[in-house]
Amino acid sequence: MISWNRYGKARVRLVKVVRPPAGPHSSQPHHLVDLSIDIQLEGAFEPVYAGDNRLCIATDTMKNTVYAIARRNTFEHAETLASILADHFVAQDAVRRVRITTSEQPWVRLSTDGRPHPHAFAQSGSERRTVVILRDQDGAVVTSGLADLVLLKTTDSAFAGFRRDELTTLPETEDRILATSITASWTYRRGTSDYGIRERIRTALIEAFASHNSRSVQHTLAAMGDAALNATDTIDEITLRLPNRHHVLADLKPFGLDNPNQIFVPTPEPYGLIEATIRRS
Amino acid sequence: MISWNRYGKARVRLVKVVRPPAGPHSSQPHHLVDLSIDIQLEGAFEPVYAGDNRLCIATDTMKNTVYAIARRNTFEHAETLASILADHFVAQDAVRRVRITTSEQPWVRLSTDGRPHPHAFAQSGSERRTVVILRDQDGAVVTSGLADLVLLKTTDSAFAGFRRDELTTLPETEDRILATSITASWTYRRGTSDYGIRERIRTALIEAFASHNSRSVQHTLAAMGDAALNATDTIDEITLRLPNRHHVLADLKPFGLDNPNQIFVPTPEPYGLIEATIRRS
Amino acid sequence: MISWNRYGKARVRLVKVVRPPAGPHSSQPHHLVDLSIDIQLEGAFEPVYAGDNRLCIATDTMKNTVYAIARRNTFEHAETLASILADHFVAQDAVRRVRITTSEQPWVRLSTDGRPHPHAFAQSGSERRTVVILRDQDGAVVTSGLADLVLLKTTDSAFAGFRRDELTTLPETEDRILATSITASWTYRRGTSDYGIRERIRTALIEAFASHNSRSVQHTLAAMGDAALNATDTIDEITLRLPNRHHVLADLKPFGLDNPNQIFVPTPEPYGLIEATIRRS
Amino acid sequence: MISWNRYGKARVRLVKVVRPPAGPHSSQPHHLVDLSIDIQLEGAFEPVYAGDNRLCIATDTMKNTVYAIARRNTFEHAETLASILADHFVAQDAVRRVRITTSEQPWVRLSTDGRPHPHAFAQSGSERRTVVILRDQDGAVVTSGLADLVLLKTTDSAFAGFRRDELTTLPETEDRILATSITASWTYRRGTSDYGIRERIRTALIEAFASHNSRSVQHTLAAMGDAALNATDTIDEITLRLPNRHHVLADLKPFGLDNPNQIFVPTPEPYGLIEATIRRS
Repeated sequence: MISWNRYGKARVRLVKVVRPPAGPHSSQPHHLVDLSIDIQLEGAFEPVYAGDNRLCIATDTMKNTVYAIARRNTFEHAETLASILADHFVAQDAVRRVRITTSEQPWVRLSTDGRPHPHAFAQSGSERRTVVILRDQDGAVVTSGLADLVLLKTTDSAFAGFRRDELTTLPETEDRILATSITASWTYRRGTSDYGIRERIRTALIEAFASHNSRSVQHTLAAMGDAALNATDTIDEITLRLPNRHHVLADLKPFGLDNPNQIFVPTPEPYGLIEATIRRS
Repeated sequence: MISWNRYGKARVRLVKVVRPPAGPHSSQPHHLVDLSIDIQLEGAFEPVYAGDNRLCIATDTMKNTVYAIARRNTFEHAETLASILADHFVAQDAVRRVRITTSEQPWVRLSTDGRPHPHAFAQSGSERRTVVILRDQDGAVVTSGLADLVLLKTTDSAFAGFRRDELTTLPETEDRILATSITASWTYRRGTSDYGIRERIRTALIEAFASHNSRSVQHTLAAMGDAALNATDTIDEITLRLPNRHHVLADLKPFGLDNPNQIFVPTPEPYGLIEATIRRS
Repeated sequence: MISWNRYGKARVRLVKVVRPPAGPHSSQPHHLVDLSIDIQLEGAFEPVYAGDNRLCIATDTMKNTVYAIARRNTFEHAETLASILADHFVAQDAVRRVRITTSEQPWVRLSTDGRPHPHAFAQSGSERRTVVILRDQDGAVVTSGLADLVLLKTTDSAFAGFRRDELTTLPETEDRILATSITASWTYRRGTSDYGIRERIRTALIEAFASHNSRSVQHTLAAMGDAALNATDTIDEITLRLPNRHHVLADLKPFGLDNPNQIFVPTPEPYGLIEATIRRS
Repeated sequence: MISWNRYGKARVRLVKVVRPPAGPHSSQPHHLVDLSIDIQLEGAFEPVYAGDNRLCIATDTMKNTVYAIARRNTFEHAETLASILADHFVAQDAVRRVRITTSEQPWVRLSTDGRPHPHAFAQSGSERRTVVILRDQDGAVVTSGLADLVLLKTTDSAFAGFRRDELTTLPETEDRILATSITASWTYRRGTSDYGIRERIRTALIEAFASHNSRSVQHTLAAMGDAALNATDTIDEITLRLPNRHHVLADLKPFGLDNPNQIFVPTPEPYGLIEATIRRS
């Protein structure tokens, strides 16, 4: 006998970009909401447990509902979106009680040249500062770096013109989200002791990411590496590791909705991974 | 100047089911391979870093390649699949060196009634045994359970006949992979002290999962709960929490390939989550 | 035959507090360094692999060395500490090559009343904003909150006067590090729609943590709850969950060193966990 | 006003070894229990929230209580230990309600030469099979391996006679727990295609771990490497990475209890890390 039951979809990932009306390259600021949403329904679903699915709302449909409702509505706070979702599901057959849970990842707008950037953001907290020292009888090699600096830009990123073969299905895009978690390392020239230089390199990496008109992750990586080398003459090369944190445009056409770069699904795997060393010419 | 570069796709997830020729309900054993694959290319990709993508093999294409090659080839060992992938990529323009990495998740075939089951498997290692004791002046309530017992069956699972509305896109299926990570808990009648009964409950849960002809996760949950209650009279109810570890059939049509339930993509999020308490009638 | 070997200690955790000379309650700022350090040695250690330990520096000794060297030296950058460690180990018998790796967790100084706080810090990045909506035919209950807001203060925290029994070994302390990862949730009165109030609650929690003269985690929890209730009349209660992220004073006496609240070992487990609901009287 | 409160210690880690009476090197089997325990108390603790700690049982004392009670009592099931703990805490001043939670990590007894081993165990589930293929125009190099194979032995492991300097505090021991999470990799001679050989290598590693009379992790590593090379002539070297999963003997002297290698505290960090390549002579 079913004495209690609840079911739903967990970890529906939603990134919504609110873009200014004038177009993607406007200097008006973009706004970004990054949510993980859980939907749980309680109700008279006993027949489902006996093998009769007629009352069952597929959890896949719940996921679709999140994206469609996020597209149709404006909301400043996650509470508002969650309320609209709750109203939607409580009106369905057999549902007695709805629980909507959201967990919001805050993003901080980047500043470049002392001004807030219109469309570049950081997750400040995961970053670590790294050091590797290799020491033998001949002395020490000091390599500094940073790890897990998460950046995202909502425009000024394209990926088009790449090779196509019979296994290629990816559409070209002139405007996408570019997000990554930067790992960088650089080796100081022997004798360097001004380790405060790390801040200058870090700022150069971030500003290059934000301001670059990107044709690919590789293209942005090279710009970031060049900027770091230009920021100081205490290093001669820098190695960058940029996983591509894909944000897939949600397909809303089945619901009769367009999606002009507003509703994205961040996907944890698989992910592109671009690594290179940029050396002073 | 680009002094070193490497790029590719990481964590391409592949589950391949090798099924006996006679059809899904045969008693011949299915075989299961569960891999996470990384592809990394080195070569003359410098133009990509300058913004010219013509030589760039999209990492999305690398992902597609894994699924197409896994469909077209038979392999007993991951080494063989990795070798075929390496041969494929080393023959592409600009590529000088290929690195293929695989990490294989072992699955252990379940036994039921003392015989190896044809299509039900476990990941034995993540499981934990749990206990919660609530104690006040009136005495103790002892709840035992298990957590993170990962099971998978390659057939005898359907999901069809569910409610469709304008936000429903999920196709019906009469044959899918069913995988879950079981959390279960049950409270003993006061005075019970034979805690070895846990093994009987656990066996009942596993055998019910394996032998059930499933119409939904809910349907299987109820069968598992009933089996547990039938296995012992020391408990009167059991609560089960079954996340649906979705395995999506890879879409190989763009490559001119069919996919008769052989090549699956396990997806970590979002996931369905089914919870219920089954009580003795 | 040993053709290559390397060994050492990984994840030696060090928190060093640099305190102003005038005493713990001075308004001069404290500084905080939070490192995870790996030490790896290569050298002529072949006899150890044959069972002869005479050349073996125990990895436990490497851990002790980190704490002793961190106490004896001043350093502004992790690179400096790592260099001193590398110099120490490369001078030991049998060692040919030393690799020191550090990963630094940045902490951001809190501001209270618009001014930088002398001894309270945050790890900004792990925080999430949470919402739970429970909806049935009678309407919705909206609960907002935050999770994983990591705060630390280097003084103004004591734990003394607690019950002692024959199983108590913890010494009393009038000055310790207090660190926690805050989870908080509050339910709005029906009809509330100004969800921007969350920022006022969050600020109240942070400022109370920073400014409170703490006798225990429980004591600080109550002060935080009261501050949140005083910050808004849209909520009547708040539930707080404060794990105690213990920072154990390193015992440097075996090395002839004192440790006036400078060198701490953060320990991940076990941890105290304090939970309570504070309701408006 | 405190309307609800609960506090306690979380993740108290306990490994208890039940050893046969005749001594550590007997062939009688050892038994192993591996638990993580949470203790939570509810009661009249309001004064603690006001800064008066006299009623407060320190969570550190709760941790001590676990180890002392685990030493004083025999138990076959975690439910029994949890019940004794609950009885202990419910009898304390101010306590109204106790919640004891345990999570048990199962260990599987190893078999060697077809017989159950008296004191060597595995956590079967975390293991992965790994492959790395490097491919260029000259052909492919195939490296296979395994990762995260967790093994533990409760005796036949010593660490003594190591170098002592003024920073050494580790006592010598002739009998300790040895636990590790093995990562191994080996490169096949060109032309090898019998990848099933991996099972023979894996068995050799496990049997060497179990049967070796260990003077150090390094000593065991060499024995494992030699065993792998002896198991097959398709490889010429093997690289092993053995983190030392330390199990610290709990200090029960303050409670008037001895601890003849029975009650251990597994510690996650820091950890020793031993790596080497063993080549065929």
